[in-house]
Amino acid sequence: MSAPIFNRLALLGLGLIGSSVARAARDRGLVREIIGHARSAETRATATRLQLCDSVHERAADAVVDADLVLLCTPVGAFAELAQEIAPQLAAGAIVSDVGGVKQSVIVAVRPLIPDSCHFVPGHPIAGTEHSGPESGFAELFEQRWCVLTPLADTDPEAVDRVQALWEGLGSTVERMSPEHHDQILAITSHLPHAIAYTMVGVAGDVETVAEREVVKYSASGFRDFTRIAASDPVMWRDLLLANRDEVLEGLGRFMEELHVLQKAIRWQDGDTLEQHFRRGRELRRGVVEAGQDAEGSEFYLSRSGGKPPGSSEGG
Amino acid sequence: MSAPIFNRLALLGLGLIGSSVARAARDRGLVREIIGHARSAETRATATRLQLCDSVHERAADAVVDADLVLLCTPVGAFAELAQEIAPQLAAGAIVSDVGGVKQSVIVAVRPLIPDSCHFVPGHPIAGTEHSGPESGFAELFEQRWCVLTPLADTDPEAVDRVQALWEGLGSTVERMSPEHHDQILAITSHLPHAIAYTMVGVAGDVETVAEREVVKYSASGFRDFTRIAASDPVMWRDLLLANRDEVLEGLGRFMEELHVLQKAIRWQDGDTLEQHFRRGRELRRGVVEAGQDAEGSEFYLSRSGGKPPGSSEGG
Repeated sequence: MSAPIFNRLALLGLGLIGSSVARAARDRGLVREIIGHARSAETRATATRLQLCDSVHERAADAVVDADLVLLCTPVGAFAELAQEIAPQLAAGAIVSDVGGVKQSVIVAVRPLIPDSCHFVPGHPIAGTEHSGPESGFAELFEQRWCVLTPLADTDPEAVDRVQALWEGLGSTVERMSPEHHDQILAITSHLPHAIAYTMVGVAGDVETVAEREVVKYSASGFRDFTRIAASDPVMWRDLLLANRDEVLEGLGRFMEELHVLQKAIRWQDGDTLEQHFRRGRELRRGVVEAGQDAEGSEFYLSRSGGKPPGSSEGG
Repeated sequence: MSAPIFNRLALLGLGLIGSSVARAARDRGLVREIIGHARSAETRATATRLQLCDSVHERAADAVVDADLVLLCTPVGAFAELAQEIAPQLAAGAIVSDVGGVKQSVIVAVRPLIPDSCHFVPGHPIAGTEHSGPESGFAELFEQRWCVLTPLADTDPEAVDRVQALWEGLGSTVERMSPEHHDQILAITSHLPHAIAYTMVGVAGDVETVAEREVVKYSASGFRDFTRIAASDPVMWRDLLLANRDEVLEGLGRFMEELHVLQKAIRWQDGDTLEQHFRRGRELRRGVVEAGQDAEGSEFYLSRSGGKPPGSSEGG
């Protein structure tokens, strides 16, 4: 185990991401001390029971005292208030970073609140599950994942390097890019797919001719993957869609245009257009598999770990 | 091994489903003889090499001679032509069944072509993978899956029972329902999700500000599940959407209405509506997990078997 990268890490927010950072940073000796903050008494009690941190505080300002790294791990909608609250307590030279899934609006909201004696390094570990809360975290969450840092032109290079070293220590590969570019990519690969999946799941629950239990029963025919995407934290997604509004609306507009093309092709029985529409998806999928972003072969989605009629043995 | 249920099974179409039926029916001794038909010379050569059938024929009419069960396993768009071609060769008492993902339009197209001396039992095994072709099949595909039969009021009960026995022999649990109801359920749980996933994948490939390789690289943040759904056979999906047109258009209309609600909430920064929108998805997901249709816990979608930066060990 090499020398710790930070002396005292303050984790503001102890949900899936915060609690996973706590477990992994401790396991790997990346920090000497971990101080936690959570607004909810229940989360604090759980964090204490799980011994995630050396101490857990109700007030964020109390958690950041003497910390050399403060990591914002709440939904992004809470960042500005947090930054305002902790600013007077930040130690000179402290680095403030975050794990928010959108970067431009976070920078706009947080950066002006960070004292000149401190550094703000915006970041986003591209890792997660559909579960949330301190009990859902685990130390391996960041292994073999991407973590994007979006430093600004005047961000202290040494501060960026130290934050990068932490994420690399947690097992991630770090990429640096502009906040604008990050938000454009994530709108397409993450925010829009989640918004669409949530919407589709809502529609399925509202159809009068099909009972909800039937939707559930036959969900293995494609729908199930949507429910998985649509299971993650509603507050987090509310905040992300609002925070990346322009990019998401742009993507949503394009998506709806294409849906209209699809709708027209179905209505007019235009098989050629439909087939063309569908071939494109297959090609991009091949790219995903070739890039090692998903496994081929065994990954048959209609039966992967579920879709079982009653009486079957494995699992549920 | 119990007595075979059919003497001679004719499989018209030897793709994922047909080839899986061949493997499983043979392994389990459910039929005495399997006669195959595929239009493509390449598929016939592969089927011969894999010894999927006792004989493989270029003409469907040649494959059905003396068969007591004929199973239509091509995309549904080819069913009518197939039925027309085989009708004169069907043995008296032969059962014709199918595996098509839509039932009303198949019944309308096929049933009038089946001679009075034969029986037509419409069916749909709810099983599959994103792969296609004779090499993608495997004997376990139907194990612990649902298979829906949609017999009509005048369908011979004994014929339905025998088809049911075959699917049960292949490992499935059989449900019977009306063709209308089947098509309503599948529009929501299967056809619409696939149409949406294909569309989203197409949009992602078309965004000028984000390179396709970046979409692929960061696909683990939600998008990847869409690419998996959007990887299956384009011709099959073209046919299904056209064949279940009214139900799909109805569902698509509802989905687009909800997208407009979402769009408006994002544009107007209406956080309450968004959060409400997202909570609904989570509840339905809980139903899917509780019904044993998917596993909870280990199923963390952002890292399941992929999403790896280069240099990682497993797989890709």
